[in-house]
Amino acid sequence: MKKTFITLSLLACAAAGFAQTPGGTPPAVSPMPMKPEMTEIWEPEVGVVTPGKNAGDPPSDAIVLFNGKDLSQWVSAKDGGPAPWKIVNNDYLEVVPKSGDIKTKMKFGDCQLHLEFSAPDVVEGASQGRGNSGVFFQDRYELQILDSYQNRSYRNGQAGSIYKDHAPLVNPMRGPLEWNVYDVVYTAPRFKADGRIDAPARITVFLNGVLVQNNTTINGLTLYIGLHHYPEAHGDDVIHLQDHNNKTQFRNIWVRKL
Amino acid sequence: MKKTFITLSLLACAAAGFAQTPGGTPPAVSPMPMKPEMTEIWEPEVGVVTPGKNAGDPPSDAIVLFNGKDLSQWVSAKDGGPAPWKIVNNDYLEVVPKSGDIKTKMKFGDCQLHLEFSAPDVVEGASQGRGNSGVFFQDRYELQILDSYQNRSYRNGQAGSIYKDHAPLVNPMRGPLEWNVYDVVYTAPRFKADGRIDAPARITVFLNGVLVQNNTTINGLTLYIGLHHYPEAHGDDVIHLQDHNNKTQFRNIWVRKL
Amino acid sequence: MKKTFITLSLLACAAAGFAQTPGGTPPAVSPMPMKPEMTEIWEPEVGVVTPGKNAGDPPSDAIVLFNGKDLSQWVSAKDGGPAPWKIVNNDYLEVVPKSGDIKTKMKFGDCQLHLEFSAPDVVEGASQGRGNSGVFFQDRYELQILDSYQNRSYRNGQAGSIYKDHAPLVNPMRGPLEWNVYDVVYTAPRFKADGRIDAPARITVFLNGVLVQNNTTINGLTLYIGLHHYPEAHGDDVIHLQDHNNKTQFRNIWVRKL
Amino acid sequence: MKKTFITLSLLACAAAGFAQTPGGTPPAVSPMPMKPEMTEIWEPEVGVVTPGKNAGDPPSDAIVLFNGKDLSQWVSAKDGGPAPWKIVNNDYLEVVPKSGDIKTKMKFGDCQLHLEFSAPDVVEGASQGRGNSGVFFQDRYELQILDSYQNRSYRNGQAGSIYKDHAPLVNPMRGPLEWNVYDVVYTAPRFKADGRIDAPARITVFLNGVLVQNNTTINGLTLYIGLHHYPEAHGDDVIHLQDHNNKTQFRNIWVRKL
Repeated sequence: MKKTFITLSLLACAAAGFAQTPGGTPPAVSPMPMKPEMTEIWEPEVGVVTPGKNAGDPPSDAIVLFNGKDLSQWVSAKDGGPAPWKIVNNDYLEVVPKSGDIKTKMKFGDCQLHLEFSAPDVVEGASQGRGNSGVFFQDRYELQILDSYQNRSYRNGQAGSIYKDHAPLVNPMRGPLEWNVYDVVYTAPRFKADGRIDAPARITVFLNGVLVQNNTTINGLTLYIGLHHYPEAHGDDVIHLQDHNNKTQFRNIWVRKL
Repeated sequence: MKKTFITLSLLACAAAGFAQTPGGTPPAVSPMPMKPEMTEIWEPEVGVVTPGKNAGDPPSDAIVLFNGKDLSQWVSAKDGGPAPWKIVNNDYLEVVPKSGDIKTKMKFGDCQLHLEFSAPDVVEGASQGRGNSGVFFQDRYELQILDSYQNRSYRNGQAGSIYKDHAPLVNPMRGPLEWNVYDVVYTAPRFKADGRIDAPARITVFLNGVLVQNNTTINGLTLYIGLHHYPEAHGDDVIHLQDHNNKTQFRNIWVRKL
Repeated sequence: MKKTFITLSLLACAAAGFAQTPGGTPPAVSPMPMKPEMTEIWEPEVGVVTPGKNAGDPPSDAIVLFNGKDLSQWVSAKDGGPAPWKIVNNDYLEVVPKSGDIKTKMKFGDCQLHLEFSAPDVVEGASQGRGNSGVFFQDRYELQILDSYQNRSYRNGQAGSIYKDHAPLVNPMRGPLEWNVYDVVYTAPRFKADGRIDAPARITVFLNGVLVQNNTTINGLTLYIGLHHYPEAHGDDVIHLQDHNNKTQFRNIWVRKL
Repeated sequence: MKKTFITLSLLACAAAGFAQTPGGTPPAVSPMPMKPEMTEIWEPEVGVVTPGKNAGDPPSDAIVLFNGKDLSQWVSAKDGGPAPWKIVNNDYLEVVPKSGDIKTKMKFGDCQLHLEFSAPDVVEGASQGRGNSGVFFQDRYELQILDSYQNRSYRNGQAGSIYKDHAPLVNPMRGPLEWNVYDVVYTAPRFKADGRIDAPARITVFLNGVLVQNNTTINGLTLYIGLHHYPEAHGDDVIHLQDHNNKTQFRNIWVRKL
């Protein structure tokens, strides 16, 4: 709280000088001073959420998508059958190459997502061939996963990028024997009643606690070839994780609806 | 990476159907297909940052403002002399009531800030009188600090609020014997050459890992009384912490210029 | 069309120099050049509208709300009965003081509005008491009408203002014996499913051909007293014109749905 | 002005009901009612501009770039020599094919532009070959000029488009023997100190009084080939008109700095 009272009469002085400067910022000074209480808003009370005990732990309003125990929140993206990836040591999830993508049973729009991933323990391949996977929001918009630790690829295709749309601000990747952490705020695109895009999707991403996307505009459906755009309206949809033929590992995945 | 090639000819089919719906979203389909390489951007290489070892640790490009050792990055806001607050146990910083605010020696504009705080160990007072302090970006725009754990106050004045501007989305506070964590992305306001506001400041805030402000527009200089506005242009400026007569505690403060 | 071909190899040169400057703008240069046709989008064909013959005339897709002939598009805002204002000379509409506001029968959301108004022929009163009326979009958000020709009032309450929200950029009013012209692009607010505001309304206004609001954010329901905000979600709604006890005149009113 | 007083006590009633609906929009209701004067802002007085007498006439603060008399505001874009186009009948300006582009002597950033154009009187060519020219803001960002009356071309290359970036909302073109009118609000891109783009350019365009671009984001330097982007920072710059080998005609060109 601002303890020093900045009174309107003082501001009015500044304003008086200001009015002599054409084009200056209009000071929002009214002819009748307010009282402090007039800019207090009390209702409704802000809802309480119990945060996780340690950093990365899910808060009380999170939906836990994977905590090492089971894949009950996931199905095969191909056929809707059981998710075909492997749980290792009751601890983490590993992609089974060529088994196909997996997707959540639940659908999401605006959300906060926490997800940890690690590149395969054995380093193989280069550029896009190394530790490649991805998180697709609403089944369409990809936050790239790649082993971008000492592995050059195109800047708009490395870890922290919105694939073929926006490069990350920096590259804060850890090595393949360590876990990386994504903390994401995703805002879904809005569409008009006739199907046209009204407001594109937006995304803020921290990778290992370092900002890599700051309310970035997502320019459309992730495409491997061609210009990104929004071909059709859609509502909430699944989050899916990609099998790109690399044994990428995942753990501690949770999401909060916003 | 999107492995399944979505070819433009397929999209063109969708487009053909779409063209019959007046007003529909224009699919970005050109008459000549691209190649995948045409949307790869390689230069310049994204800069590497080494993330902190554990959650909350400063990454390699951070400026450490306080790590328990000394107050060499801070001065008194009143007179520019030594910062008058107390370091406890070589661990945390405690407000010395009535000693005045402290501010950084360095100036900042756009930045990522990490800061941990704890309410006074002994709970006294209520509403704004309990564990009150604040972080002012560019010496002007306040992210409120308050002991908002089981302590009702006005919603636009509790922890996680932009003071008297925006209430937090939720209240994820921990109790007064625990540490709370702010992770903030702050975008400074932009001004026109003649001093008028061009783009207001924006802020994204996580409190204990839970989103409380999502790219929120800051409506102007924090005022205890009256309507918020931007009275004058300014450049980078100090971060200051408020002495509001409560023994609020701080630790692990670092900032990255964006 | 850009005739001079700027080839990607030239851009690559620029990029090479650029890459030496850390933090520079990433040039969107891919390793494989495109062809011009690849950024041509042909479908769907853009819809044809026949513009008005003379400036201010309604285009072919406009809904004419008043053309001097009748009030068939309007009703009394009070009771839904016949609009109680007066048509003069089969030419213009005049407020009948104390008869009450009028509103359209049709409802609108995003729209382009053309409206001409004139202050009462006899100049009486001062400040807000002179030639006062207003256009309310969606029955809630007021673009002020006032005889602001050589008539000082508060800046956020004069002609061209969003009432008590935003002053106009300049004051291009004509005298009370002349007609003033509003050309407006109004974008309705968007709400979330739970009723919270998702994107505030925005407005662009030309007054007599001079820009006075440039995609200005409307901060909420127009209020005579208190802070503007969005108390509740709503859909398309009527446009209403205000009886403020002054004989303000109107003519040539049309609207295009966007 | 909102005549009916909406008092805060009434709003508080609404709020009371509202608080029972979790997640609802927070009504901005403070515990202490305001007075109407508290939201009146009087200073500084809004500057007066005298509008043009008839629609399309320049207001008093406009810089007239062409009024039929001379080309004193223009030079050849090629060599800075006299503008090589032809004035016809002391009325309009006609492109002299292959003489090259012309540009203003003055430089502009944010501006409102009025410009009238007509396709060549004899209709020749098709698609981009017919009546092609263009207005480049800041020497870089093209608002396309084309004879798009009954002349199909790619949608993001027709009159009213931001060339190869955004198609117009509708096509309100007049035939080649008539004059078309552009009214444009152009907001220049902002750059960071290090040259990176900070806020892209934006543009609102009316063509013959019909909205065709509504605060559209310009994605970068206009390119005939390749992806649009902002390769480098720049300040105010000339407006230039394109010689695309067609005898396009111009008249009544004026601009206001914003």
